[in-house]
Amino acid sequence: MTRDRLSKRRLKEIRSLSTKKYRDRLGQTIVEGVRGVEAALDAGARLTEILTTESALDASGAAVERSGAPCYVVSDREMDRISDVETSQGVLAVVAVERMKDDRLDGLARIIALDGLQDPGNAGALIRTAAWFGVDAVVTAAGTVDLYNPKVVRAAMGGLWDVGHAHVDDLATLLRRLRSAGFTAYGADLEGTAAGEWTPSEPSVLVFGSEAHGISGSVAALLDERIVIPGNARRRGVESLNVAVAGGIAVYEWTRRRTPPRGTLEKAAK
Amino acid sequence: MTRDRLSKRRLKEIRSLSTKKYRDRLGQTIVEGVRGVEAALDAGARLTEILTTESALDASGAAVERSGAPCYVVSDREMDRISDVETSQGVLAVVAVERMKDDRLDGLARIIALDGLQDPGNAGALIRTAAWFGVDAVVTAAGTVDLYNPKVVRAAMGGLWDVGHAHVDDLATLLRRLRSAGFTAYGADLEGTAAGEWTPSEPSVLVFGSEAHGISGSVAALLDERIVIPGNARRRGVESLNVAVAGGIAVYEWTRRRTPPRGTLEKAAK
Repeated sequence: MTRDRLSKRRLKEIRSLSTKKYRDRLGQTIVEGVRGVEAALDAGARLTEILTTESALDASGAAVERSGAPCYVVSDREMDRISDVETSQGVLAVVAVERMKDDRLDGLARIIALDGLQDPGNAGALIRTAAWFGVDAVVTAAGTVDLYNPKVVRAAMGGLWDVGHAHVDDLATLLRRLRSAGFTAYGADLEGTAAGEWTPSEPSVLVFGSEAHGISGSVAALLDERIVIPGNARRRGVESLNVAVAGGIAVYEWTRRRTPPRGTLEKAAK
Repeated sequence: MTRDRLSKRRLKEIRSLSTKKYRDRLGQTIVEGVRGVEAALDAGARLTEILTTESALDASGAAVERSGAPCYVVSDREMDRISDVETSQGVLAVVAVERMKDDRLDGLARIIALDGLQDPGNAGALIRTAAWFGVDAVVTAAGTVDLYNPKVVRAAMGGLWDVGHAHVDDLATLLRRLRSAGFTAYGADLEGTAAGEWTPSEPSVLVFGSEAHGISGSVAALLDERIVIPGNARRRGVESLNVAVAGGIAVYEWTRRRTPPRGTLEKAAK
């Protein structure tokens, strides 16, 4: 374990990872806490540095050793400046992140697209769900929370390193292309086919909108089928499920059905 | 709409609703924002007062009128003191809350029990899910977040007023009693029957533990069956689903199966 000091310049860069602009420029984000760092290692993420306070050195020792990444001891005050959480555990890692080129999406089997979803906790929970069920990639559209936002990374609980990520400015353009490449486009909505009656095709893309606004009009127009999670008629106060919960149920149904393996599909062009 | 001023004494009481002790003593909690107030009204919750700032009077007018509750205009500063959210919408309601006597639970069909779950966002999402799928009641055990915590109320999005709530000091004691009353006890766990293979009985209770510690030992020993949401073997970084997401899938499976209606069950005593 090195005990070198980080250069002032690099410290400043790491602090700047709190903004999307610098996360994009540097291709890096931050994951906090021993569990967070270990999950990144489990998934084979590339750690560029581990930062720890003097008092957290013992707790982070095993993760540091495993990572092979250089480890730097920083002051409590510096850790607080970098940390995104209220009470830092005193350890965090800088992780290299790379978006997929969006033309690589065409070769995948199952893609989740987030259309305007803003809440980092819900986006992170959806990524965790996607990783759990073996979804290949999560795509964000313009107006959607940045998946490298430390709050998303935290809520994803290691899931971000298990799925591909891509970003597109215009989701409608991507959906048109995926559909002509043989994808079926599904969207989670308040009306449509009940999730339990759904027979999902592969390859396919499943779109989630924001809780407040749903799926945007130009995207909704391109969906082959809308999927709904029917509720009980007795409820009066609650208008919908939380989007991460609805997403969990939809992804569960989407991934557990036996569908013909890729390559045996003979899809009529739509 | 009254424009009276709240007494200093009552204002102090309302501020004190930020603590569990006073929520319990007064049997009241706070719901914030126009949507939150409207959801409480939709579900038939009893509002004792609506508080609004001068600038939010217009936005809250319809909800106030519908509620029939007295409305008081308070200063922005006072609203900030009472509000639990970072940026208050300038309107909140005090809502009367009442726990069910726990012996009333025996007559219900489906009960969720939270065993040590601490995260208010996840607890609120589970209540929202319970309301959506028509679960009868949510029971908390000692060491579980208070369901009347404003953060839980907010995440429940009106769901708290659609389900019964009870609290028990010892969940194992309750489970023993429910089982002898004919209930089957299920628990969401990391090993057990796959949710898709599950044939739930009615009446039944479904237990969720905390993400960190799972279901406590004395409760786990009383479960008739553990339910698991199987994941994909390819995942490496993510160890589990978010508890609200896993709960959503489990409750979805629990409530959609056709089970014999209550009364036709002839259960052997276990």
